[in-house]
Amino acid sequence: MHRYRTHTCAGLDASNVGESVRLSGWVHRVRDHGGILFIDLRDTYGMTQVLCDPDSAAFAEVEKVRAEWCIRIDGEVKARDPELVNPKIPTGEIEVFVRGIEVLGQAKELPLQVFGDQEYPEETRLRHRYLDLRREAMQRNMTLRSNVVRSIRQRMWDQEFREFQTPIITASSPEGARDFLVPSRLHPGKFYALPQAPQQFKQLLMVSGFDRYFQIAPCFRDEDPRADRSPTDFYQLDMEMSFVEQQDVFDTIQPVIQGVFEEFGGGRRVDADWPQISYADAALWYGTDKPDLRNPIRMQDVSEHFRGSGFAIFARLLEQEGTQIRAIPAPTGGSRKFCDRMNAFAQKEGLPGMGYIFWREVDGAMEAAGPLAKNIGPERTEAIRQQLGLGVGDAAFFLGGKPSAFERVAGKARTVIGDELGLTETDRFAFAWIVDFPIYEKDPETGEIDFEHNPFSMPQGGMEALQGDPLAVKGFQYDLACNGYELVSGAIRNHKPEVMLKAFEIAGYGEEEVKKRFGGLFTAFQYGAPPHGGCAAGIDRIVMLLADEENIREVILFPMNQRAEDLMMGAPSEPTNAQLRELSLRVLPAES
Amino acid sequence: MHRYRTHTCAGLDASNVGESVRLSGWVHRVRDHGGILFIDLRDTYGMTQVLCDPDSAAFAEVEKVRAEWCIRIDGEVKARDPELVNPKIPTGEIEVFVRGIEVLGQAKELPLQVFGDQEYPEETRLRHRYLDLRREAMQRNMTLRSNVVRSIRQRMWDQEFREFQTPIITASSPEGARDFLVPSRLHPGKFYALPQAPQQFKQLLMVSGFDRYFQIAPCFRDEDPRADRSPTDFYQLDMEMSFVEQQDVFDTIQPVIQGVFEEFGGGRRVDADWPQISYADAALWYGTDKPDLRNPIRMQDVSEHFRGSGFAIFARLLEQEGTQIRAIPAPTGGSRKFCDRMNAFAQKEGLPGMGYIFWREVDGAMEAAGPLAKNIGPERTEAIRQQLGLGVGDAAFFLGGKPSAFERVAGKARTVIGDELGLTETDRFAFAWIVDFPIYEKDPETGEIDFEHNPFSMPQGGMEALQGDPLAVKGFQYDLACNGYELVSGAIRNHKPEVMLKAFEIAGYGEEEVKKRFGGLFTAFQYGAPPHGGCAAGIDRIVMLLADEENIREVILFPMNQRAEDLMMGAPSEPTNAQLRELSLRVLPAES
Repeated sequence: MHRYRTHTCAGLDASNVGESVRLSGWVHRVRDHGGILFIDLRDTYGMTQVLCDPDSAAFAEVEKVRAEWCIRIDGEVKARDPELVNPKIPTGEIEVFVRGIEVLGQAKELPLQVFGDQEYPEETRLRHRYLDLRREAMQRNMTLRSNVVRSIRQRMWDQEFREFQTPIITASSPEGARDFLVPSRLHPGKFYALPQAPQQFKQLLMVSGFDRYFQIAPCFRDEDPRADRSPTDFYQLDMEMSFVEQQDVFDTIQPVIQGVFEEFGGGRRVDADWPQISYADAALWYGTDKPDLRNPIRMQDVSEHFRGSGFAIFARLLEQEGTQIRAIPAPTGGSRKFCDRMNAFAQKEGLPGMGYIFWREVDGAMEAAGPLAKNIGPERTEAIRQQLGLGVGDAAFFLGGKPSAFERVAGKARTVIGDELGLTETDRFAFAWIVDFPIYEKDPETGEIDFEHNPFSMPQGGMEALQGDPLAVKGFQYDLACNGYELVSGAIRNHKPEVMLKAFEIAGYGEEEVKKRFGGLFTAFQYGAPPHGGCAAGIDRIVMLLADEENIREVILFPMNQRAEDLMMGAPSEPTNAQLRELSLRVLPAES
Repeated sequence: MHRYRTHTCAGLDASNVGESVRLSGWVHRVRDHGGILFIDLRDTYGMTQVLCDPDSAAFAEVEKVRAEWCIRIDGEVKARDPELVNPKIPTGEIEVFVRGIEVLGQAKELPLQVFGDQEYPEETRLRHRYLDLRREAMQRNMTLRSNVVRSIRQRMWDQEFREFQTPIITASSPEGARDFLVPSRLHPGKFYALPQAPQQFKQLLMVSGFDRYFQIAPCFRDEDPRADRSPTDFYQLDMEMSFVEQQDVFDTIQPVIQGVFEEFGGGRRVDADWPQISYADAALWYGTDKPDLRNPIRMQDVSEHFRGSGFAIFARLLEQEGTQIRAIPAPTGGSRKFCDRMNAFAQKEGLPGMGYIFWREVDGAMEAAGPLAKNIGPERTEAIRQQLGLGVGDAAFFLGGKPSAFERVAGKARTVIGDELGLTETDRFAFAWIVDFPIYEKDPETGEIDFEHNPFSMPQGGMEALQGDPLAVKGFQYDLACNGYELVSGAIRNHKPEVMLKAFEIAGYGEEEVKKRFGGLFTAFQYGAPPHGGCAAGIDRIVMLLADEENIREVILFPMNQRAEDLMMGAPSEPTNAQLRELSLRVLPAES
């Protein structure tokens, strides 16, 4: 007989009745029923009911065990009485009569219970993560994560991608976020950096001729903590392919992502139609570049109906350059109460308010209600209604100004309206490719032109496009939005050294600067670079969506807390003087 | 037609004759045969011969291309003349007549050639790794590595292990090597560390109830560079399982490793019998704890034959405590020339020399030759011959003293003898588990007792064993040796807090120190820890063996050089003042 177990805690059923078995696991719960002790013995596979009556030689020992002790028991499998069968668990037909017991690991008084649904402060959970992880929901999330990663790998291999490991201790690669630095002992005063993403390495792999690369890659960004972001490291499905255009990347990654959502979505609907929406349209229609398409609301430009109208605020606004009036249609939102609530929402978000119209039936006729409708008169109101395709019982909200000033709030309002009116479907994953991102953006304060995203994307129109207005240049750059999250980001890369130099020049970086910052890649491009492109998908994000969690720490085994600390392991901690000396470093005293 | 290719460079055969195709790839070689240009067009999949005659509209463009330009060609597939068919490559029956060409990426003059076998200094290769990686041998090695890792993963899943990702930015975990530190921006003066191995996390996973964990895990050790060691990061197959004994771990990992060697060994013999050899026997028999069992030589203790013998040096040596005389049998080594060469080898290794006896036939009778045989006389010589099982044409070498002083050289001599006499089989992978490692070792200078390996192993005999002589305590700790390399290392862990404390106490660490250094794990063990154990296998090492490479940099995509620098990417580099300020650090001036 094996030293610790003949079966797992999910391994016994009616076919084992009469056998002598050995089980190991944790005491999930102990109950005393009329002097007989019932223990739910748990391991990662399942649960088995074991029981011990006072006649058993083991009774005195069994009596001592408490929740979360790790024990081994020997016993005999017996069938449960028919009325006591538990059809919900695989071992529900049997129970094990304890003949012997060995305590493998005692437990002190528990800072958090594994049994039950009690909630604990996050600090408690993280400090005793080894207990927290024993809980059913966490076991499920971590198992899900493991299975998702495996499935992604399998799907990438099935498409003839190979996984390659790129360096983790490497060079600083400025890509927008802050690097984590690693001091070099052998080169005093110099530092390595942890990669924000394997961006340059995967492009170098393409220049090396590898054609189809992927990696479940750890990425490192020294960012301020947020609920949906790890403050230290996170994982990406990173992929890159040569000799492709944008649509090839889409055709490659969609089956992977869609397949994973179908496999692990638990029956929730997974859209197979992934529309491609331009960055500009996404901003107009959804107020964001990561729209939630489960929400059917699409905003519209209704400026023409307000130009020169009796609603002076909007009419005057429209006289300024670059302004617009946009409508958020709200089907079924046609009540003053709802409209007032949304108006209050806009004020809470820092806007003066949202104009609205709602349509109701009065004496058998449709009436447009609200102050705005009165100001612009029935003809314009009706034209708006027709453009938006609304009717009795519906409402529309209006925001005006420079889109950049109200788009974000408009997007949020769209979300709230969709949620509150029950328009947004649940139990569904809706995807959209957001395409045609601008390559550059203008700093609103300094007026300087800089890269909107990362500097590696190929401008649409190539060198020629870069001769014109930089702000009009779009890139072969794309994101995948799912249910309001950015799930994937990628681009066809700029693999031509002369176009790369020109693109950097526009953003104010000279050739020397390019060589200094991206010298490895820039030099490589001068030795026969293939056209290539790819993307990266957030693993943590995918698992969050599948697990229906809103906090990234629910899908990471040992996450940092929101202050980027690991209280269980004691990180970060003070180095020894010897360590600092070896690294030729001194810590500066705190500023007072 | 696809923008870049209808087929890969390995995709065309006789069945495509007559088709119009499009190919993209690199110019491997250009030849001019009587005015017709032949290009070997290469991608990661294969090679296709394309040709262009002066009648083609593309000729003027094709004439310009040089080695390693990345090009796209359009053309027509034609059958080669039967006498020109190349049966060695899949595309050898056809060639493509170029009708159009597009240069996708030009190449400057090459610092290293992709075509051919020319050798280049490692610095050149690493600085232009994207060219080096295009070479056939490197493509093969990296593809092998990718396939090996995939196969290992598959085999672990098949045994119901799940892969989990453990933190990379974490706490310092003193395990023998030096940590890489990462300064924390949010906690000035404090540092994270990169894990030397996920040792503590995998043990915490067992305490969390996960049962069977594995990970292809990046590990980080700030070590001085060596040919078979990466100076920064390297990869391990890291695994751990609960409710197991040592033999369970062996039974689990052997099929994985053996399977991978069988799958990728290229027909070399893979031993299925993995003997278990104690650490003490390995030292005696092979002079090392990572013996190469392809070499049949096994050393023996022959002290008794020299005690009080006429060979005064050995006889006197044996009067000192703790000394031994060991013999290295050398079948077929029975010539004075060979014996003298081995004696010279020992002197080069810093020993006074190696005594030897060799047996030859003189006038139809066996004679033992060499000064040593004369000194100890025929009876003792014959007894030695019989113990070692040698005969005419064989030799034996002798080393004496404290084993610790000569064991290493003895092991090396055994290797040289095996190699030089052709006794060591090639084309074979021979494995051995080395078991029963001592838990402690005594510092020869200070006399202090410290852990021989890492402090996490369970002592054989548990608490009771720790009451006696520490140096006699063996651990449930093991290595797997393969062809002279350590491939795997592992242990059954010490999961009992009180045994852990006692074990540390012996090595001079008090409870406070244990809590400070391993507080997370030590605390976790107090909440129901299961018995558990596991091991870690070096991925780079496995791939090196399979690829028959002796330098780890041949199986890593973008390795550091021997000074721990990446000259291509420029790492490490000087941080900006702003970065140092954010981290509250100052670099100390170099010591003068």
